[in-house]
Amino acid sequence: MAVGLEELPPLLPVPGVRLAATEAGIRYAARRDLVLIESDAGSSVAAVFTRNRFCAAPVVLARRHMSGATTRALVINAGNANAGTGDQGLEDARRCCQAVAQQLAIDVEQVLPFSTGVIGELLPVERMIVAIPAAVAALSSDAWADAAHGIMTTDTVAKGSSRQIELDGKTVTLTGIVKGAGMIRPDMATLLCFIATDAAVEQQTLQQLLQQACAHSFHRITVDGDTSTNDACVLIASGQAGNTVIDSQSHPAYAVLAQALNEMCLELAQAVIRDAEGVTKFITIEVVNGASERDCMEVAYTIAHSPLVKTAFFASDPNWGRILAAIGRAPIERLDVSGISMYLNEVCVLEHGALARSYTEAQGQAVMRESEIQLRVDLASGSSSATVWTSDLSHDYVRINAEYRS
Amino acid sequence: MAVGLEELPPLLPVPGVRLAATEAGIRYAARRDLVLIESDAGSSVAAVFTRNRFCAAPVVLARRHMSGATTRALVINAGNANAGTGDQGLEDARRCCQAVAQQLAIDVEQVLPFSTGVIGELLPVERMIVAIPAAVAALSSDAWADAAHGIMTTDTVAKGSSRQIELDGKTVTLTGIVKGAGMIRPDMATLLCFIATDAAVEQQTLQQLLQQACAHSFHRITVDGDTSTNDACVLIASGQAGNTVIDSQSHPAYAVLAQALNEMCLELAQAVIRDAEGVTKFITIEVVNGASERDCMEVAYTIAHSPLVKTAFFASDPNWGRILAAIGRAPIERLDVSGISMYLNEVCVLEHGALARSYTEAQGQAVMRESEIQLRVDLASGSSSATVWTSDLSHDYVRINAEYRS
Repeated sequence: MAVGLEELPPLLPVPGVRLAATEAGIRYAARRDLVLIESDAGSSVAAVFTRNRFCAAPVVLARRHMSGATTRALVINAGNANAGTGDQGLEDARRCCQAVAQQLAIDVEQVLPFSTGVIGELLPVERMIVAIPAAVAALSSDAWADAAHGIMTTDTVAKGSSRQIELDGKTVTLTGIVKGAGMIRPDMATLLCFIATDAAVEQQTLQQLLQQACAHSFHRITVDGDTSTNDACVLIASGQAGNTVIDSQSHPAYAVLAQALNEMCLELAQAVIRDAEGVTKFITIEVVNGASERDCMEVAYTIAHSPLVKTAFFASDPNWGRILAAIGRAPIERLDVSGISMYLNEVCVLEHGALARSYTEAQGQAVMRESEIQLRVDLASGSSSATVWTSDLSHDYVRINAEYRS
Repeated sequence: MAVGLEELPPLLPVPGVRLAATEAGIRYAARRDLVLIESDAGSSVAAVFTRNRFCAAPVVLARRHMSGATTRALVINAGNANAGTGDQGLEDARRCCQAVAQQLAIDVEQVLPFSTGVIGELLPVERMIVAIPAAVAALSSDAWADAAHGIMTTDTVAKGSSRQIELDGKTVTLTGIVKGAGMIRPDMATLLCFIATDAAVEQQTLQQLLQQACAHSFHRITVDGDTSTNDACVLIASGQAGNTVIDSQSHPAYAVLAQALNEMCLELAQAVIRDAEGVTKFITIEVVNGASERDCMEVAYTIAHSPLVKTAFFASDPNWGRILAAIGRAPIERLDVSGISMYLNEVCVLEHGALARSYTEAQGQAVMRESEIQLRVDLASGSSSATVWTSDLSHDYVRINAEYRS
């Protein structure tokens, strides 16, 4: 069960962007598993991809296509990652792009492929090609919710977000969808996330906007420390809102758009954790007063990846000894354990390296019984900070991953 | 259930070393939980300790005592780690040492304290002090098996090993015991491990022997990536075998003793993994032909720590895609994915970055059904190698750690 995730909120259409989701029978029966996203000519498209060296065929091809042409369409499938599939995988991804390009009368390089699901099996490319014409015919600006459902794998709920801002007196819409629940530690990239806006933004500036938004959202979450072979986050700007083109960081509208995008990415990234495999707790780990942001992140991720800490959260056990042990082994240069303080929500557990005099086990248990918990670690060695979001390690995590061939 | 661990083998007495295990009621009822080890005057003692910065009070005190005096006795308790206990913890550990010293008529600095169990609770020091005189009275060279039982926490079986070698025509005995099942990723140290020999070895040489033995045994195992606050490994050399004192690495007997010690440490380290919390598989991860030993270790540990790989092993699922994804995110400088080959026991799964033509799912499944599995990764980028041993991630791991306050 997802933690603190409402039903998919209303997802606003983005002028200049159309979507469709269809059943191609890739792995699931009677479920939409093939999604198309098309944007008008004149759109800018930015993307970040997984840093996993074993990146999937669609990631290789999408990077190649983006470097040579202006993207106009995305073809996304769930149920099969097309990873570890060698040359055949590349050819399969190219054939899907070709089928979409042919229907839309654009070049094959203008189509980017994305896949998510089981690693190491060949894509059922014939079934996909058969499904593509109907999907193209169904393209509509109102199909964001359908698309959010179509990209799910072990997700238990569809995840998306919309907001509107004003740029140059024009109303600008941002809508995004995301999937992902396991094999989650995005590294300079994310899972599958597709965001569109009708703002007018120049290509390089759009890339910059996307990267800074990912830096404090998708790059700050972890379920299991496992970086996927298929992570990708795409941002489309159709330019139809009528604002003056945002062409650099010093453009007056940059900061407004950046803030809206940052908020959306953070919401979507947190939604992934709220729907993490087997999740029962949504945990915010805030490390403050470190010597550097890197130090704070290392400490936060060491806590977040500790199976012992994660099972303690699952058990609602205020087992601060395990958190302390994780902090103590974090790979950072200097750590003055006598300065460290630690809080569970508002409850002070450790004060300057020792158990707080005010702390009682009952206080700790009260916090740990919540489904949303904030752990705050004060390193008392500088002025940097970092926040990471993670989930607990439950029986269901083991069951899901022992049963599911991902 | 431990994997491939026989009943505790016969543990040979080591001349000059006496042990006792008694019930002090520290955490467990009707169970030995306090162990003493005494060695004759003239013994050399070497030790390595956890690198966790939040190291426990007994670790702090043991280091301090070793630097100022010749060790004659060890006092070890299970059920309480005396970690995260501040100044009171140090005082409690010192009082235990004092009680032992008084009974044995030696200095308090000649006693080293060791604790394992729950973090963050004060030691029931009065109950321990009461139990010490009877333990001292019971000291015997035949109590190695009792001691192996007395130091257990979540271990399901007692673990120990003995062997004999010849040095200078003299028979030399080595006997060691170890405990540990969770919070296992020894970092330049190990869990609680106590080894004794009657060989005569000079202090610095003994320390060198111990460090090189740990390097390829205790420093090559992981259950959950969590380095304990209390890890320690101690090697006692009583010198009563009558061999000429081994006083440097160039002494002719050094290599013979080193080999025996290395074999014993490897056996004991593997025993920890065979009895890992919730273990159903004993997994050997061998990474060969890497650019450096560090690269090979990073790849091996990235695989060994991946919750997705570990749950696949638990499920007997030859899910090589997850292993490949773990290799692809290993933090090493260069990784040529097109050169990588991978074997499950003798079955070739990946060949030069692609699925081996000969591979069938049935072959993979046959290997994965075994309780002992060797995974071999060939990086094809050098001539270094490293081997790491690990366990799977099972329902029982979650259950044990959700229930046990460690």
